Amino acid sequence: MSPLPSMMTGKIGLKHGAGGRAMRELIRDIILKEAQPLRPGSVGPDAMDDGAALRVGDQWLVITTDSYVINPPFFPGGDIGRLAVSGTVNDLAMMGATEPFALTCGIIIEEGFAAADLERIRDSMQAACREARTEIVTGDTKVMGNGELDGIVLNTAGIAFSRRIVSDRGLRPGDRIVITGTIGDHGLAVMAHRHQLGFEGALESDVAPLNDLVAAALEAAADGVVAMKDPTRGGLASALHEMAAKSGVGVVLDEGKLPLRDQVRAASELLGIDPLHAANEGKAVIGVRPEAVDAVLAALRAHPLGIEAEVIGSCVEERPGFVILDTGFGRRLVSEPEGELLPRIC
Amino acid sequence: MSPLPSMMTGKIGLKHGAGGRAMRELIRDIILKEAQPLRPGSVGPDAMDDGAALRVGDQWLVITTDSYVINPPFFPGGDIGRLAVSGTVNDLAMMGATEPFALTCGIIIEEGFAAADLERIRDSMQAACREARTEIVTGDTKVMGNGELDGIVLNTAGIAFSRRIVSDRGLRPGDRIVITGTIGDHGLAVMAHRHQLGFEGALESDVAPLNDLVAAALEAAADGVVAMKDPTRGGLASALHEMAAKSGVGVVLDEGKLPLRDQVRAASELLGIDPLHAANEGKAVIGVRPEAVDAVLAALRAHPLGIEAEVIGSCVEERPGFVILDTGFGRRLVSEPEGELLPRIC
Repeated sequence: MSPLPSMMTGKIGLKHGAGGRAMRELIRDIILKEAQPLRPGSVGPDAMDDGAALRVGDQWLVITTDSYVINPPFFPGGDIGRLAVSGTVNDLAMMGATEPFALTCGIIIEEGFAAADLERIRDSMQAACREARTEIVTGDTKVMGNGELDGIVLNTAGIAFSRRIVSDRGLRPGDRIVITGTIGDHGLAVMAHRHQLGFEGALESDVAPLNDLVAAALEAAADGVVAMKDPTRGGLASALHEMAAKSGVGVVLDEGKLPLRDQVRAASELLGIDPLHAANEGKAVIGVRPEAVDAVLAALRAHPLGIEAEVIGSCVEERPGFVILDTGFGRRLVSEPEGELLPRIC
Repeated sequence: MSPLPSMMTGKIGLKHGAGGRAMRELIRDIILKEAQPLRPGSVGPDAMDDGAALRVGDQWLVITTDSYVINPPFFPGGDIGRLAVSGTVNDLAMMGATEPFALTCGIIIEEGFAAADLERIRDSMQAACREARTEIVTGDTKVMGNGELDGIVLNTAGIAFSRRIVSDRGLRPGDRIVITGTIGDHGLAVMAHRHQLGFEGALESDVAPLNDLVAAALEAAADGVVAMKDPTRGGLASALHEMAAKSGVGVVLDEGKLPLRDQVRAASELLGIDPLHAANEGKAVIGVRPEAVDAVLAALRAHPLGIEAEVIGSCVEERPGFVILDTGFGRRLVSEPEGELLPRIC
């Protein structure tokens, strides 16, 4: 591992936005430094979970926000609008809050951006909201000068009320790791498109709102679902590292079980990008108690977005915080992406 | 007035982010086009108010969001961090929700941005949160490549529970218009700084969270406060045009009563910027029933942020949607800024 950058005197680099270790250090050492502790009993920024959860009466109010800087804004399988709605709905769902109450949307546009493209993005956001059964209730629009912003960026925040919270740190040895479908689709589709690899059509982003799928899993075995995370920036490797470290367990992955499309595998070999490091925008990693895994898997596979769900690994006491890939021929450590390879992937 | 741009075939221009008519048209004709109506009884995006208000039990949940693209991020009297917290707290307060429950913060940083500057911004946000008695509960960090974003932009969303909502459209003839202090300070301070006019120190942004001040006004005369807006982008002129048009009244301003610092006046003359068009980031325009105006004014003036509060005009039946300036020698129409003069002012 590389030495810690001296953040006090340093410059922000692309890796600080890449979803991996450098980003977590930036957030921990700069953004959250000296932050006052949040009200007791809540999930605050110090948890570095998918969002915050605050008590309101006998419920939780779950709040999350994300900015979207993806380049290009239109890509095979989706666009920045669908991504922004799905990403925020999914962050709420990963906390166990599967009924998004409302979204906000901040739009920042570069002068000269085509109005017709803005209309496409608006239509796409509205369609994704209908899928997720939510709505954008308020927004803001800013314009930056030509050359001051590359195209368009969006920010969405979302809120939801929930009776129960699922954290990203509830794993214990023996728990099983479930993925709701194929990995790496979003990251490789965007990178192949950017490099004009000509896979288009066959290689598409998986971007989709997952609240309905997650609700099905929770309904199948509410107490058996003990940790969730959507493996976006930094991919499955980054999500599992974070879940393992926070839970104090090791995670052993069975490589043969990882659902992977042929085109994603081909693109990953051409581009030299490990699919374990590539972003997903329509998948969830779910930690499940062993006795609940059959019920959860059946519920996921009965849903159109979970047909290819698989049990891909399990949690062990050894090597807490590490992710180990069992290839069938031996075991190796999965690295956590630094992520400079994949800037502006979401 | 200039003809409507053909948005369908057009390009987004700086004026579409300037807070005036062009921005309202962009939002109405593109961003909100074909939006599904929000749940009944709520204040949704179609209201184009400072935020949304949704029923939750016997309360309102008020939600707002804003992005901040100010250039430069550090300016006399404040910085982008203080601006982002204050702006969102103030949008909640303008809806009558003076106890911000929680804020979110999305940060987008250009590669190469100094970590020390990020730390200053973080400290400033924390300080502003303490002033407003709120906290940032969750966030997101993205990095864009060198040259893809000019410096840093922030997005904050805020939520608050409130028993009562104050809209921006409750004015009727006879109501008085109150401003909580001097006008144009933020816009002229930033523009003078940008043009290196050398006014610094004497000319500072008014950026501040106003929830406490607004709470004092509401406590003095809850039913007498019938409309509120913070005159940010587009200044007092834009805020009053919007309030007048939505309420169906004319507004007559008494020029002699407009609180204006000497330095702001001097800078406005040098730069050719009407202080009525310049952004404020620590002021509220409040529409008050005539019988409540003494109580509201006294409550405002008793607060450190409202010492210079003034009754600056009143509402009339004639010329609904127009703002008229009574100069003492005659009357003229106040124009609504197109706003290209003041890009990235907040």
